[in-house]
Amino acid sequence: MHVTSEQRLDDGVVERAFLLGEIPGTLWTPGSAPAPLVLMAHNNGLPKADPRLVARARYTAARGYAVATIDAAGCGDRPRSAAAEQARADLRRAMRAGEPTEEILESLVGPLVENAVPEWRTTLDALLELPEICGPVGYSGGWAALGIRLAVAEPRIAAAGLFAGGYVPRAQREEARQVTIPLLFLLQWDDEGNPRQRALDLFDAFGSEEKTLHANPGGHTGTPWFELEDGCRFLDRHLK
Amino acid sequence: MHVTSEQRLDDGVVERAFLLGEIPGTLWTPGSAPAPLVLMAHNNGLPKADPRLVARARYTAARGYAVATIDAAGCGDRPRSAAAEQARADLRRAMRAGEPTEEILESLVGPLVENAVPEWRTTLDALLELPEICGPVGYSGGWAALGIRLAVAEPRIAAAGLFAGGYVPRAQREEARQVTIPLLFLLQWDDEGNPRQRALDLFDAFGSEEKTLHANPGGHTGTPWFELEDGCRFLDRHLK
Repeated sequence: MHVTSEQRLDDGVVERAFLLGEIPGTLWTPGSAPAPLVLMAHNNGLPKADPRLVARARYTAARGYAVATIDAAGCGDRPRSAAAEQARADLRRAMRAGEPTEEILESLVGPLVENAVPEWRTTLDALLELPEICGPVGYSGGWAALGIRLAVAEPRIAAAGLFAGGYVPRAQREEARQVTIPLLFLLQWDDEGNPRQRALDLFDAFGSEEKTLHANPGGHTGTPWFELEDGCRFLDRHLK
Repeated sequence: MHVTSEQRLDDGVVERAFLLGEIPGTLWTPGSAPAPLVLMAHNNGLPKADPRLVARARYTAARGYAVATIDAAGCGDRPRSAAAEQARADLRRAMRAGEPTEEILESLVGPLVENAVPEWRTTLDALLELPEICGPVGYSGGWAALGIRLAVAEPRIAAAGLFAGGYVPRAQREEARQVTIPLLFLLQWDDEGNPRQRALDLFDAFGSEEKTLHANPGGHTGTPWFELEDGCRFLDRHLK
């Protein structure tokens, strides 16, 4: 793990850019004592530098967590893949034309999730060796599909906060039943591009004994600020 | 307002039984400074002495609120009404026989809500004259239908936490659109006697700009303890 830049923010949080082989990432740590780790992923390959993700990560770090994110292959700071770029172009064209997008999303997001999981596990291995970081590990992500896959594949993940807005491939909708860790599932009630009933069905499917749905009115990006606080308290209950 | 008994609990909360004309009630206050008031009602005339209500009230008072509850006419410590007793007997018989209960519930709960509202408003008038109590006023109740009616009829109510489990008469389902105060709506996902879709429709209908649904798995009485904390933080945002 190679740290490429480091800055200390006003609230004492240290923000570091790192490279792990080909994987570029960012790590925020709260300061002195070893902190539980939260993996934070943005939806479907949105860049790790996205301001909404950065704001969430800094807030969470200031609440006493080490927070890490990486760019998925073909996204953010990484070289583009021809197949993914083609799928994205197809998606934009279909949306403009008002055509169905399900199969395009499936072909775009399905492989993105599958390919991201080993990279997140490699990142997890490296991060847990740092003295600033201790277990247990949580996941908090705009990217629900990745969270589902990780929750099933990675026993070190102890709790997950998932955002319902975003395409969840059929494979992850299937394996939702195998998720058994505590979940906080966040839904925007009027999310234009993400059918409400599909999100409610997914909540219903999760196998976890403790799972809580928080739903608020408004569109995809309208999540109220207090859900960030609620998300941290959920992590506090399970990671601290 | 006539105080009939008073005791100080371990955490400094003072619990007083009172009579206001014919209305018996309980008031919990947190101690010294004037506290915002929370009206707390149990579903469909369950007695004010119900242990779950008392536990919620004491917890909320220890968090810095004055909390008040009263027995509805014909319920708890008050003389029974023949009509309500007949409706309750009809309801038990219909449930045992597996027959539809909607019309019986409508005839039982509809008048109960209508009759309860003036008594709660009288109680509110009296409580707000006490030096231990200040505005603003919140509602936090197992009894969602009463909360809806009060939120529409009583401009002093600034925020309401409502529990979805319990029959909401058609009149209150209609007037849900007129509710505009901030709401926290608590749903038990697998509540045997209360159809999930009806609760989701009610959440959808509320006219409030800020409304949040919290849903957890399990039956009617299975609400997890952390929702009590979340409910207090919701009140904190709007009453403190």
